[in-house]
Amino acid sequence: MVILGSVSSFKRRAEEILMKAYKELEDRFRRLALIDEVRAVLGWDWATMMPKGGAGSRAEQLSELSLVAHELMLDPQLEDLLNEAELYIDKLDDWHTSNLLEMRRLWLHNSALPATLVEALSKATSACELCWRDAKSEDDFVGVLPKFAVVVQLVREKAQAKADALSVNPYDALLDQYEPGARATHIDPVFDDLIDFLPSLTDRVIEHQQTFEPARPFKGPFPVANQRELSKRLMGVVGFPFDHGRLDESHHPFSGGTPEDLRITTRYEEANFTSALMAVLHETGHALYDYGLPEAWRRQPVGEAPGMSIHESQSLLIEMQVCRSPEFIRSITPMIRDAFGTEDPALTADNLLRHYHCVERSLIRVEADEVTYPSHVILRYRLEKLIISGELPPGELPGAWREGMREFVGVEPSDDRDGCLQDIHWYGGDFGYFPTYMLGALSAAQLFEAAKRDDPKILPSIASRDFGPLYAWLRPNVHSLGRLFPAPALINRATGNKLSTAAFKAHLNARYLGC
Amino acid sequence: MVILGSVSSFKRRAEEILMKAYKELEDRFRRLALIDEVRAVLGWDWATMMPKGGAGSRAEQLSELSLVAHELMLDPQLEDLLNEAELYIDKLDDWHTSNLLEMRRLWLHNSALPATLVEALSKATSACELCWRDAKSEDDFVGVLPKFAVVVQLVREKAQAKADALSVNPYDALLDQYEPGARATHIDPVFDDLIDFLPSLTDRVIEHQQTFEPARPFKGPFPVANQRELSKRLMGVVGFPFDHGRLDESHHPFSGGTPEDLRITTRYEEANFTSALMAVLHETGHALYDYGLPEAWRRQPVGEAPGMSIHESQSLLIEMQVCRSPEFIRSITPMIRDAFGTEDPALTADNLLRHYHCVERSLIRVEADEVTYPSHVILRYRLEKLIISGELPPGELPGAWREGMREFVGVEPSDDRDGCLQDIHWYGGDFGYFPTYMLGALSAAQLFEAAKRDDPKILPSIASRDFGPLYAWLRPNVHSLGRLFPAPALINRATGNKLSTAAFKAHLNARYLGC
Repeated sequence: MVILGSVSSFKRRAEEILMKAYKELEDRFRRLALIDEVRAVLGWDWATMMPKGGAGSRAEQLSELSLVAHELMLDPQLEDLLNEAELYIDKLDDWHTSNLLEMRRLWLHNSALPATLVEALSKATSACELCWRDAKSEDDFVGVLPKFAVVVQLVREKAQAKADALSVNPYDALLDQYEPGARATHIDPVFDDLIDFLPSLTDRVIEHQQTFEPARPFKGPFPVANQRELSKRLMGVVGFPFDHGRLDESHHPFSGGTPEDLRITTRYEEANFTSALMAVLHETGHALYDYGLPEAWRRQPVGEAPGMSIHESQSLLIEMQVCRSPEFIRSITPMIRDAFGTEDPALTADNLLRHYHCVERSLIRVEADEVTYPSHVILRYRLEKLIISGELPPGELPGAWREGMREFVGVEPSDDRDGCLQDIHWYGGDFGYFPTYMLGALSAAQLFEAAKRDDPKILPSIASRDFGPLYAWLRPNVHSLGRLFPAPALINRATGNKLSTAAFKAHLNARYLGC
Repeated sequence: MVILGSVSSFKRRAEEILMKAYKELEDRFRRLALIDEVRAVLGWDWATMMPKGGAGSRAEQLSELSLVAHELMLDPQLEDLLNEAELYIDKLDDWHTSNLLEMRRLWLHNSALPATLVEALSKATSACELCWRDAKSEDDFVGVLPKFAVVVQLVREKAQAKADALSVNPYDALLDQYEPGARATHIDPVFDDLIDFLPSLTDRVIEHQQTFEPARPFKGPFPVANQRELSKRLMGVVGFPFDHGRLDESHHPFSGGTPEDLRITTRYEEANFTSALMAVLHETGHALYDYGLPEAWRRQPVGEAPGMSIHESQSLLIEMQVCRSPEFIRSITPMIRDAFGTEDPALTADNLLRHYHCVERSLIRVEADEVTYPSHVILRYRLEKLIISGELPPGELPGAWREGMREFVGVEPSDDRDGCLQDIHWYGGDFGYFPTYMLGALSAAQLFEAAKRDDPKILPSIASRDFGPLYAWLRPNVHSLGRLFPAPALINRATGNKLSTAAFKAHLNARYLGC
């Protein structure tokens, strides 16, 4: 009895230590999350409000916050706490387990890099990004090449260091930063399948389109004040909580802020309202996902999205699956006519749909339609794998780009401005991000298909501008789960199937070929 | 020779250690300044942009930043560095010496309080401030009294702890937080002099005013968009650098942000534009001072204002001395008529001056005119000294307030809403701040008098909306000095005299009695 008593008291004591270590970790990750929130507010302000002359000062504020976060994360005690808490991981429930595993993953990413490499990367990417702005506007790839080559070299070192820490290969280590657990060997067959299918689909869609009357151009102009008002009304329709967020303007649309204080932006052009409007709805999708993340796990790693693909799936589900659907476009056409007057004969539901469903082979990813977009992403994915493996030297990028565009999209840029200089990602050191856009599009299609199957009221409700049934499905199946499951498990659980191209293909066939 | 060599090498080594310690201190205070800048941006956002639902989250972000700053300041190494650097303070030039002394002062203020007291104060003041909002709107002093009594008790503990650390008396320790080096024994004779002089001046001014035609009321309304546009034009006249700042709206006007990114706010009313406009010009004065602080000492304690009195002197110099002057009002009347149309017969320079120079005994400090304002401040100063010494129990405040208003201002509030509940300061735990408003007004008058004496072109230039000569005087005499000198020494150096009531009296006599 005495011995048993001791053992049980020893076990209780051990569990207390475990919980103490785990709780202390939660406190520390809560602090890190708060610093991230502050960065998000400062980043939003930079893009929307800050006068030009504030940039230098703001950069120093942000870099101080990075230093604070770095010191919190790399405090040696944090590693000890991870080691201690992990000894007893089998005592934790699923949420706590996922949270602890995610803490370790974040710590591995952060501790993998020597301080000198972090510093060198930060300097090199800032300099390269700045230089890229001029290089892009002057179509001067050679001008940015020396700085870009340095960035590539340092990113390859980073990939190697993280690969060693995570026991994966270098490209996967970069991917893992944005999409925890994702590996190129899982992505390759999915993308191969798409690239087999898309070129012929594009041919058929373009041929099919020629059988209709072409989209009639809008007269315009569309005053910015009216676009802004309409955007807010539509955000209201989609369910944006204005007591917890706002809409502003920035050079590139984005969704920022925090779940309690969502900050989305768009950019208006007087000549056309269609892209600004869809950008607003896209960012609203991101924002509503953040808003729906599990409150009980706020500011813990497990309370975040499982990765960028699921985040993107929520913006694309709202934008591509829902808001570009004939049902929704028809339902909001009166609001559009209300905003801009009824004089313009191009402002009809049918004509809006022709604009929103127009497919063409084009050069610029961010302007591409739903059918050709995947080819743009897959090209970047293949090229960035070659850059990281060293098989494609940075200087050979323009040629490889042109060749890839010809092969995948069917058009070839006549200059680098509309070619390999168009996206900021690589020049800012972001490799491994692009595939998440496509995984997001596939996930959006598969989730929306499952939602409509599970609740046939969803689509008719959307046609009457009621998003209630959609969120009633998304909340338990996606939003409220945070990072409890990795993205593939979340998709499997929500849809009953592994992520595949099937739903996306079916969606494109239905929308663009009517079959 | 060998011995001399050793001594000199020892000295060199010692100086190296000194400089190392001092430089390390500069790095650490630079980090603290950056955290303060981040807090300033978050505070601005809170007041101008944040949706209501973001408040809880923002409070947690701000409290995380306080914790980060607290950890940086109270790192035991920082105290060691101060001790080391001070050993060699006689080797430092004036700027470095002032900087090091100021670091010590800041450290003393921060290290004086036990963590438990800081925590208790933070909770008590938040709770009391929240309760005060309701108490004010419901005229319910008794409702806020229990929480207020707790705040007073904790502030008295804080005052005692800081008094022990700084070797001053408790009220001076609070004063020193806002006005480094200021002591009640220096302020008392100045305020006594004012309070002897003001009541009879007020009588004479009110009598004198009755000999003119009264101010003609404005027709209005004055659309907010036009007020905003006019405000920006006038900020431009005064010299606000719009590439380094912006104007927005908040419930209470303030000047925030950083020297490179000035954020000022005002509040518009459609019925009247006069207060919003002067608030803008007041905050522009604060902002231009921040903008002119010494760049070489950015983010160091010595690069800040010597205290709140000099900061307030710069807003009051611009607002009261310059922008309410007949010369300036006459010069901008065409711009005002331009903004609001020429239909309103009340929009003449003479009538604007009658509005801006109207004196009356009134209950609310922030709405008081220049002649009666000092009495409001002096009442608060005397009461808060009694509260901190314990001679005035919190429960007796309403009675003491009414009595003081009758004696100093000549009117008595019929309720506490317009009495001791009107200002947030004490309920938020801020004691020792009020006198800086009045020291600022005296400093503004004395500085402007000296400026006009040194350069007779200043006033004529303002009459033609040219602020160049004014800044040519303010820059070397005030702005660029930062905290190199304490406020009294700065005033003495700039004006050739110790701070006194003489210039302020002369200003009031000239403006309000024409003598």
